[in-house]
Amino acid sequence: MTLKTVAILSPGDMGEGVGASIKGQEIDVITVLAGRSAETRMRADRAGFRDVADIDALVTEADLVMSIMPPELAEGLAADVAAAMTRIGQSPTFVDMNAIAPTTARRIAKTVGAAGADYIDGGIIGWAPGKSDSDTRLYVSGPNASMLDQLDGNGKRIIQLGDEIGRASAVKMVYASVTKGTDSLLTAAYTASEALGIRDIMEAEWGASQAAALARMGHRVPALPADAGRWIGEMEQIAETYASVGLTPNYHKGAADLYRLLDRTPFSAETRETIDRSRTMQDTVKVYVQHLEKPE
Amino acid sequence: MTLKTVAILSPGDMGEGVGASIKGQEIDVITVLAGRSAETRMRADRAGFRDVADIDALVTEADLVMSIMPPELAEGLAADVAAAMTRIGQSPTFVDMNAIAPTTARRIAKTVGAAGADYIDGGIIGWAPGKSDSDTRLYVSGPNASMLDQLDGNGKRIIQLGDEIGRASAVKMVYASVTKGTDSLLTAAYTASEALGIRDIMEAEWGASQAAALARMGHRVPALPADAGRWIGEMEQIAETYASVGLTPNYHKGAADLYRLLDRTPFSAETRETIDRSRTMQDTVKVYVQHLEKPE
Repeated sequence: MTLKTVAILSPGDMGEGVGASIKGQEIDVITVLAGRSAETRMRADRAGFRDVADIDALVTEADLVMSIMPPELAEGLAADVAAAMTRIGQSPTFVDMNAIAPTTARRIAKTVGAAGADYIDGGIIGWAPGKSDSDTRLYVSGPNASMLDQLDGNGKRIIQLGDEIGRASAVKMVYASVTKGTDSLLTAAYTASEALGIRDIMEAEWGASQAAALARMGHRVPALPADAGRWIGEMEQIAETYASVGLTPNYHKGAADLYRLLDRTPFSAETRETIDRSRTMQDTVKVYVQHLEKPE
Repeated sequence: MTLKTVAILSPGDMGEGVGASIKGQEIDVITVLAGRSAETRMRADRAGFRDVADIDALVTEADLVMSIMPPELAEGLAADVAAAMTRIGQSPTFVDMNAIAPTTARRIAKTVGAAGADYIDGGIIGWAPGKSDSDTRLYVSGPNASMLDQLDGNGKRIIQLGDEIGRASAVKMVYASVTKGTDSLLTAAYTASEALGIRDIMEAEWGASQAAALARMGHRVPALPADAGRWIGEMEQIAETYASVGLTPNYHKGAADLYRLLDRTPFSAETRETIDRSRTMQDTVKVYVQHLEKPE
């Protein structure tokens, strides 16, 4: 089947980028903007998405529904779309591209399967298409995943992982467990150094013997609050993924805790586009320490 | 006071290295070998330590007792030494160089203080003296820490951090929270990739976009079991350090869990000197996965 209309829910940073890339491949991209923020409307408009009235209209028009959103919203959205499919009597293929545990992906597959839809598991690695020099990788798996090959190109690569649902999600989980796990661990350590009154000593020691770690703190400490709110749920999904094979969930429970701390600071109101780049790691971490929940 | 006799408990990898460096500074180094392993005796002999009969003899002869051991043994050793001081009526300065939380250091300071001894807090960063191109850093703090300046040199640097007990321990904790935390997180992620059946996919993705992380896995995955047993307690001390300032203890609870897993494998019988360097990360991780405790 040749894709003519693809629905994207919803047009956040990644949804906008992937949708714009698909739109550039001569495919109509639709979404639902009713009740959404001005920023989301701006993104959808910039990417050339066509707004439809509601989920029912979206399910009626779309050949494919692609879910790209914070992971804690993924199951609710899938249930809403499945309900619309049942109401309307049409079942476009459902692709879940979210950062969710394989166990969550298999639950969502059942939900949309019960509404008669094919389910494709997906996981996105890299910056949004067009935001970096390297193509965004869209890992996909499931019995019908090959139909996504027609979306390959224009800043993104479709990478097929076979028939098993959960496999693409596993790739995303393990990858993010390292990148976002390390970023948050480094931020936690830097915060510990400030809270313990040894920041200057650690900066000297790290500068001499862990220069790469210190440089990464310098980049990530001021920037992470802009993403923290969206990543709490992702860390919880990773913890679930690790636990599902008998590995400790505790690293990523810790990462979720750390992102919760950053999300409590005023900096969490920033977006990637509005981060105050003049704010140093030293200024930033002082505010983190003010938001620690002191023991006892 | 000029140090003439320094006691080292006990001659593990770091104790041997620090003691040998002190011995090379024309200071008599003593220890107690009764009941110790052949390997410990070999290390003490190689470093030129003089064996004394028991802790009482050690306390009688030493101007300074330096504790360098796995952190879970630190409080017990300090209590034994304090008891000997009380029995003998002599109170040499006690230096705790272990990887312990500042809260643990302050408890030990009380124990040895009650026996009339001065306490110096310490934390060691880097490989043992003589094992790398850069000097080992011995961070020290406490009212009497300046007396350790005479040990500076010969492959080690004494770095003074002022009067506050706990400050040197805090430096060690925060430093190790990054190095050993990251090593174990990378190892956990590599183990997850094998357990989830996506190791080859992750190696390709990491190779393309996270080359430094993959290279670090290649070095650390086969080598970590040799140290895992000694580092479980250290991770628990770091968790306690983070919790003491209201930061999440969960990352390092996870690291302790991971080191417990590695310690269950047959590779944990290796030492740094006997690691099988021909064993690949791929061969190693297969055995890790066999030792996971499957959920349910």
